[in-house]
Amino acid sequence: MANSSGSLFRITSFGESHGPALGVVIDGCPAGLRLDLSRVQEELDRRRPGASPLSSTRKEPDRVELLSGVDGGLTLGSPIALLVRNLDARPADYEPGLYRPGHADLSHELRTGQRPGSGGGRASARETVARVAAGAVARQVLEALVGPSLEILAWVEQVGEERAACRRPARQEIEQSPVRCPQPEASARMEARIRAVRAEGDSLGGVIRGQARGVPAGLGQPVFGKIEAELAAAMLSIPAAKGFESGSGYAGAARRGSENNDPLEPAAAGEGGQLSSGAWVRSRGNHAGGLLGGISTGMDIDWTVAFKPVSTIFLEQDTVDAAGQPARLRARGRHDPCVLPRAVPIVEAMAALVLCDQLLRARGLRPLR
Amino acid sequence: MANSSGSLFRITSFGESHGPALGVVIDGCPAGLRLDLSRVQEELDRRRPGASPLSSTRKEPDRVELLSGVDGGLTLGSPIALLVRNLDARPADYEPGLYRPGHADLSHELRTGQRPGSGGGRASARETVARVAAGAVARQVLEALVGPSLEILAWVEQVGEERAACRRPARQEIEQSPVRCPQPEASARMEARIRAVRAEGDSLGGVIRGQARGVPAGLGQPVFGKIEAELAAAMLSIPAAKGFESGSGYAGAARRGSENNDPLEPAAAGEGGQLSSGAWVRSRGNHAGGLLGGISTGMDIDWTVAFKPVSTIFLEQDTVDAAGQPARLRARGRHDPCVLPRAVPIVEAMAALVLCDQLLRARGLRPLR
Amino acid sequence: MANSSGSLFRITSFGESHGPALGVVIDGCPAGLRLDLSRVQEELDRRRPGASPLSSTRKEPDRVELLSGVDGGLTLGSPIALLVRNLDARPADYEPGLYRPGHADLSHELRTGQRPGSGGGRASARETVARVAAGAVARQVLEALVGPSLEILAWVEQVGEERAACRRPARQEIEQSPVRCPQPEASARMEARIRAVRAEGDSLGGVIRGQARGVPAGLGQPVFGKIEAELAAAMLSIPAAKGFESGSGYAGAARRGSENNDPLEPAAAGEGGQLSSGAWVRSRGNHAGGLLGGISTGMDIDWTVAFKPVSTIFLEQDTVDAAGQPARLRARGRHDPCVLPRAVPIVEAMAALVLCDQLLRARGLRPLR
Amino acid sequence: MANSSGSLFRITSFGESHGPALGVVIDGCPAGLRLDLSRVQEELDRRRPGASPLSSTRKEPDRVELLSGVDGGLTLGSPIALLVRNLDARPADYEPGLYRPGHADLSHELRTGQRPGSGGGRASARETVARVAAGAVARQVLEALVGPSLEILAWVEQVGEERAACRRPARQEIEQSPVRCPQPEASARMEARIRAVRAEGDSLGGVIRGQARGVPAGLGQPVFGKIEAELAAAMLSIPAAKGFESGSGYAGAARRGSENNDPLEPAAAGEGGQLSSGAWVRSRGNHAGGLLGGISTGMDIDWTVAFKPVSTIFLEQDTVDAAGQPARLRARGRHDPCVLPRAVPIVEAMAALVLCDQLLRARGLRPLR
Repeated sequence: MANSSGSLFRITSFGESHGPALGVVIDGCPAGLRLDLSRVQEELDRRRPGASPLSSTRKEPDRVELLSGVDGGLTLGSPIALLVRNLDARPADYEPGLYRPGHADLSHELRTGQRPGSGGGRASARETVARVAAGAVARQVLEALVGPSLEILAWVEQVGEERAACRRPARQEIEQSPVRCPQPEASARMEARIRAVRAEGDSLGGVIRGQARGVPAGLGQPVFGKIEAELAAAMLSIPAAKGFESGSGYAGAARRGSENNDPLEPAAAGEGGQLSSGAWVRSRGNHAGGLLGGISTGMDIDWTVAFKPVSTIFLEQDTVDAAGQPARLRARGRHDPCVLPRAVPIVEAMAALVLCDQLLRARGLRPLR
Repeated sequence: MANSSGSLFRITSFGESHGPALGVVIDGCPAGLRLDLSRVQEELDRRRPGASPLSSTRKEPDRVELLSGVDGGLTLGSPIALLVRNLDARPADYEPGLYRPGHADLSHELRTGQRPGSGGGRASARETVARVAAGAVARQVLEALVGPSLEILAWVEQVGEERAACRRPARQEIEQSPVRCPQPEASARMEARIRAVRAEGDSLGGVIRGQARGVPAGLGQPVFGKIEAELAAAMLSIPAAKGFESGSGYAGAARRGSENNDPLEPAAAGEGGQLSSGAWVRSRGNHAGGLLGGISTGMDIDWTVAFKPVSTIFLEQDTVDAAGQPARLRARGRHDPCVLPRAVPIVEAMAALVLCDQLLRARGLRPLR
Repeated sequence: MANSSGSLFRITSFGESHGPALGVVIDGCPAGLRLDLSRVQEELDRRRPGASPLSSTRKEPDRVELLSGVDGGLTLGSPIALLVRNLDARPADYEPGLYRPGHADLSHELRTGQRPGSGGGRASARETVARVAAGAVARQVLEALVGPSLEILAWVEQVGEERAACRRPARQEIEQSPVRCPQPEASARMEARIRAVRAEGDSLGGVIRGQARGVPAGLGQPVFGKIEAELAAAMLSIPAAKGFESGSGYAGAARRGSENNDPLEPAAAGEGGQLSSGAWVRSRGNHAGGLLGGISTGMDIDWTVAFKPVSTIFLEQDTVDAAGQPARLRARGRHDPCVLPRAVPIVEAMAALVLCDQLLRARGLRPLR
Repeated sequence: MANSSGSLFRITSFGESHGPALGVVIDGCPAGLRLDLSRVQEELDRRRPGASPLSSTRKEPDRVELLSGVDGGLTLGSPIALLVRNLDARPADYEPGLYRPGHADLSHELRTGQRPGSGGGRASARETVARVAAGAVARQVLEALVGPSLEILAWVEQVGEERAACRRPARQEIEQSPVRCPQPEASARMEARIRAVRAEGDSLGGVIRGQARGVPAGLGQPVFGKIEAELAAAMLSIPAAKGFESGSGYAGAARRGSENNDPLEPAAAGEGGQLSSGAWVRSRGNHAGGLLGGISTGMDIDWTVAFKPVSTIFLEQDTVDAAGQPARLRARGRHDPCVLPRAVPIVEAMAALVLCDQLLRARGLRPLR
């Protein structure tokens, strides 16, 4: 089950980084959705390697093939299987030699007792192709059910020590930056930093911030089905993710209740959430990040994800060999110096999957009409 | 399913804060475990309100009753149901009036369309009684399968703006502090801060750090069954939790790979993890927090959880009434000014549940002999 | 997970036959249902031992206690926990001695490596108290969502070699028979047969037939979520159940397609199912038992369950002792000579659980208004 | 989730009968298994259409492609994805016209509100390609863990009114019969009957019997994880299945306990099951079908499945058109007159999946060494 996620809208991911293909099966997409496959391709293009001078030089067209679940452009209510072939796999680059410090190759071997020769296998960030494809379907389900006001986006807020502070950027502002940071000045600093570090053979981490706008109030389920809990799991399942915040997060931990509570105020119909009396309410401020007790309030859902620096670097490091003896490693292969820009569509995809599943648990799987 | 957690070792929590009782059913405890119910009671006592001058004055003895699953002191392999009666419920204190800013009462109403009269219901931190009881069983399963070297503990590392920095404290150092901070000087500062803020009618957030020591290498499942993902979900399901870090977390996001990678070195047998060659390996440093790709390396698993300040405060705040009209609220009832000290056993319990479930997925449900 | 059933409407059963209590937690009941607890008690009374001269003499009042999930008569959307105390447990009657041929005590020991001293434990039919209680809740959810035309009932169609043939009896016709066979003459024969066999110390099996009338067309999910598959699993999870048929079942296996196919014909609005054109259709005849490809057609869902004779008999049988040596056993304890009459409400309860879960998967968990 | 089955060893099936491909993802296969893909192909060949004069004339080579999960012949512990392309799809044959009585096309439309143009879609028996492929993997896991003594086989015991009675045939006796009935005389009668009925444009149902030999004692989980319950669900998820029996089934319902109970007797080590005392025990006779309380006893697991006659026939039948108006239908397309022979490998595959999942729940997912 470890390769499946979701409860009613459930995806199953498969494929190794240097095997024949990657893919995903989506079970629980309601029938009757007009699915636009070109939007799935667009999202894959957003995370594709080789698309930017900042990313890995692996050349993968990442063309998606639809294997099932759609007929005449409409979803059938049956599983949607999407396949992406690996065309530029080079398993030879990854022949098992010295262990890479900080890389999951080691821990996968501790788990399975095998040294896979296939370059990361499931530990590779290439696995996220499956999620991005599925997320692009989830997004279309959400838009069909909620309407076009629903918007899920993410951007880079930190690369190494370079930070930006953005409140509510538009998608276009994000996408015109090569590092996907909507603040031009910060974007330029981040880009320079990535180029410098790449030249040194080193790598950088950073922070991505995500927002889901227009999510209806009242989604989420106490106590283990809280949106915060599911979002945290979704984000921490992304390779290299090491931290998650919802709303005010760690900063809020230093505040008093009187500072951190978001005061409530009357709202226009359709804004915020609707009380049992029929009146509408919203908050002034959004330290809660759109979630109280894991349930949406109708305000923007707002979170961050911290990524550690890429573990594969081209500087010499202390490690051990297959026999466990001390050794010095200088890695080979094609690797991003900083995954943050390419992780943006992954963060969005995982959020779309969580929200779509939550919405369907409330609404059920009956067809769209 | 939202009230269940775990896949092979699965708990189902029930009960409202001001209803008749709280309880938990544990499905997936292997047969043949000698279960010590007094250790379950001890953990409940650690989270009990009214035990410290720093906590809520609600008086609940929280005596646990075993309803099933154990005969003659041995687990039967059937569900273990544990019940705790609510004896000091005062639903009248919570009669629906004005909405509390920052409290999940509002979002639960947005979800269900009902105003429950019962003081938080499932949104109350009292629900964690069920988890602490179940966690105490999980801990015993882990100890029986891994041995007494396995240790799961947590402590308070921050209260409001007061911080401590502790590396690897002993349980006893933690428990002798009234705020569960093992650093005496920081503990005193935190305690003073809590008393001051309580006197003002305000509240505080903070950060808890947890460690699981002695966890065997190779536990965890790619890609959605990563320990980090499950731990994050478990922690974010705790009331008031708004952030999670694994290992170097947000600090690591600012580092380079050459700084953040933990170099590998040969290890003594039984220390760290065993390679497929049979040799043992460990890391120098532990920025990874014992997890690479969500799989344990045999080093300490290390994480933090950020808690927002308690939302219910006794200062006047802007809010709305049932009709959605502006109003000013000064809350009543019995509430902790700072949940951190009492949240320590909850953090430990959730970690024990995650690790026990992971271990059983690897080992299966066959009986202990 | 083995003690949980259902996907959105999910029950978790706990308790041993001779332990302190039996109970069930229902997770996934939508908020806003007016729950009538007396109807839960009524269903428990229908399966209660000691209520008829034909059943076990164990005296259990089986009073249900509501522990959570309801406030002011309305469901909260949180788990509903129901508890029934065991008051007439006599574990001493079941001290482990010789193995009972045909009884699950043996296989439970083969599984757990333990000889439980508690009279069947989870293998006992007493565990079905939990299911009957949960089924009574499921029925109320179904009625609230579908309307009062929905009716789930079952009756005894065979006891040993005595058979009845009933097409579509009313609940009252069933309940006025002490063996729950709506055909008076067959009922009398069955009753006489049970009395005779009880006097001999032997036991009888039989067949129960169930019907769910008024189930909306279009429920059920291909391919593993077929109603037939879930109903089969539900029925075969009942103690002593050894067979299941849907619609024409084994008799249909001997027919030709031209005989077994149910011809289609136009139907009045609301009768049968509605085509995508808007027209209504029904079948002439119902060999399909209301299910095609596991999906409801709007015709009566119709099934049977075969029960083996009760394994515990008071005649001498060949068996082995604890050391595996040949022995002769004459059982003690309080046992039904024929479980069929008491199994009727269990069959109904399991069907209600399956259908409620299916309906909620289509409709979602949003509250009733 | 409706297209997934299993809990630790979990398969997800996808693909429509007349879409691009069918496939399956297997999540939960332990690492370190030497997987023989040719055995997967062999099982697909056994269920392939066009292989016998008795079956559909659709020509599908059904070549399996491995997409993931295996490297160097060894399973990686990651998902195994298997793909089979549809090469002889003729959706035009199935253009929606009149409804076929007894066919799930109707109920799928009632569910989704769509008239799929693709010949059965997920309702088609062609979907079982996925299961047969997955079952062939499950079988290899079982053999690796239990040893070669484990054997799962099935045969045709009834076709229309022609019956056979076989106790414990060898696989070779089954496979040398064109109808997969190991009793030559009955096989000849069945074959003749199928030819005659095909010539008439009609169809036949029948009964398949399955056996799993060498299954270790103690597998299975009370109460909803009973092998009988899971086997029943697995069998009833096969297209056209309408009945299931375990052991003596419906015949046992007519017997007394003294007749139906299987007496116990001492057994040689390794035969039957082992008591907690260490002694071995087996039963004389096997009315229980190897299962007591849903848990294996070490005796042969023995069951039957009833199949209704194929609904698509070439005789004229009463039906309705798209507008719900009365009409007369004479079907076209390529259809088996009797699915029984081809359903044999499907029955075996589903049994292997259930047993493999049960074994892994007891044993866990740790790698094979």
